[in-house]
Amino acid sequence: MPKKPLILVTNDDGITAPGLRALIAIMNTIGDVVVVAPDNPQSGMGHAITVNNVLHCNPITIDDGPQLEYTCSGTPADCVKMAVSEILNKKPDLCVSGINHGSNSSINVIYSGTMSAAVEAGIEGIPAIGFSLLDYKWHADFKQCKDFVKNITLNALKNRIPEGVVLNVNIPDLKAADIKGVKVCRQANGIWKESFDKRKSPLGKEYYWLSGEFVNKDKGQDTDIYALENGYISVVPVQFDMTAHHMIQKLNDWEL
Amino acid sequence: MPKKPLILVTNDDGITAPGLRALIAIMNTIGDVVVVAPDNPQSGMGHAITVNNVLHCNPITIDDGPQLEYTCSGTPADCVKMAVSEILNKKPDLCVSGINHGSNSSINVIYSGTMSAAVEAGIEGIPAIGFSLLDYKWHADFKQCKDFVKNITLNALKNRIPEGVVLNVNIPDLKAADIKGVKVCRQANGIWKESFDKRKSPLGKEYYWLSGEFVNKDKGQDTDIYALENGYISVVPVQFDMTAHHMIQKLNDWEL
Repeated sequence: MPKKPLILVTNDDGITAPGLRALIAIMNTIGDVVVVAPDNPQSGMGHAITVNNVLHCNPITIDDGPQLEYTCSGTPADCVKMAVSEILNKKPDLCVSGINHGSNSSINVIYSGTMSAAVEAGIEGIPAIGFSLLDYKWHADFKQCKDFVKNITLNALKNRIPEGVVLNVNIPDLKAADIKGVKVCRQANGIWKESFDKRKSPLGKEYYWLSGEFVNKDKGQDTDIYALENGYISVVPVQFDMTAHHMIQKLNDWEL
Repeated sequence: MPKKPLILVTNDDGITAPGLRALIAIMNTIGDVVVVAPDNPQSGMGHAITVNNVLHCNPITIDDGPQLEYTCSGTPADCVKMAVSEILNKKPDLCVSGINHGSNSSINVIYSGTMSAAVEAGIEGIPAIGFSLLDYKWHADFKQCKDFVKNITLNALKNRIPEGVVLNVNIPDLKAADIKGVKVCRQANGIWKESFDKRKSPLGKEYYWLSGEFVNKDKGQDTDIYALENGYISVVPVQFDMTAHHMIQKLNDWEL
């Protein structure tokens, strides 16, 4: 790794989110930091990109840290594309996304704006990590994460994340001293059982709010959910080849 | 399969898109059809869901077919959640999404609203297929697809798509007689080389349009891109367990 790695930082909660500010502070102790983050919350944006609208992207100063910062009107994946194509004049050594306010374990990886930014970086050939803390509160306590996030990041720079893979790191909502360690896991097989909250507007028009309850269908002890429930940080290697390779042979037996 | 399967139809180009209308007509020859589709184009929405805004969903009549139709203000994944949770009183036997105006082969699967609807159905335990025609035009000729789409759908109902897998079907822009057949494939390793088109608003403010060029980095003859370029329909089994299982052992050697 270079002496001072170039680190691209982004997130999905927006450029003022305490989780992003905490991540920037940690990355400033490791490398040269450029931030390109959404100008508004982008939770649940999955791997959305903006194809039917224009994008705005502008420099901004939010605190007195050494990082360069830009705010972008698009999705987390847009931010990474914008950074790579328009802002940075060389490929970053690492992209980190987060620290997300809330879990991105199990199936949440697929809905997550935080992880979509990391995956987009991975697609572009940039080693990438998404970090999430299991606390949805805006003023969650990110101090407890600091040493773990730093250690995992240094480790990733040293060992190099192979092409085609990005890391999904989830941190339990515990005091640092109570976190038992780090476990490499697979994504638990869980789903959201949706319910829609049906309401009426002041003019009497019906509308809905998406709501729901997460259900873990997976009894395995090698999953991210299991690790988190037992006081460990979970690290899931995530790939963006979505092919179900094990099904190819079976499908060849269909008379298509 | 039941005598008359219940088929949920959706897309990402919106409820009036000719590709959706063609898919509805085909599905009406197979089963009882309920349509829940976006009220506006949702291309590139990836697996976005609406968590920071309300949703509207209303019945609508667009043609004189036997299908029931609803239009929804959300993303394709929202449409599927809304259908399952609020509209249908039993789980559908199949969800089909499309026919998309344009390719969802290779890495496009991850940006695709069409495929996100199919994947969302898969997550909910519903067998699902996304169909795309390699013609971006609004008035693309979907007639050529008809027999292939019907055959693949009947096949999927007969053979049953296993849990955890959905099908990504791409159809080359050829006359039906020139299509050589169907190939089961893996997702080609390709990326978008982005460029942003920088413009100025009437008030002199800079803005960007996302643009780019698709680059296939994959020389394999077992990929969707190879099949399509050689006149075949590609069928890729897609999974939503994004774990890179092959990396778990290697990550255990890192000192995390």
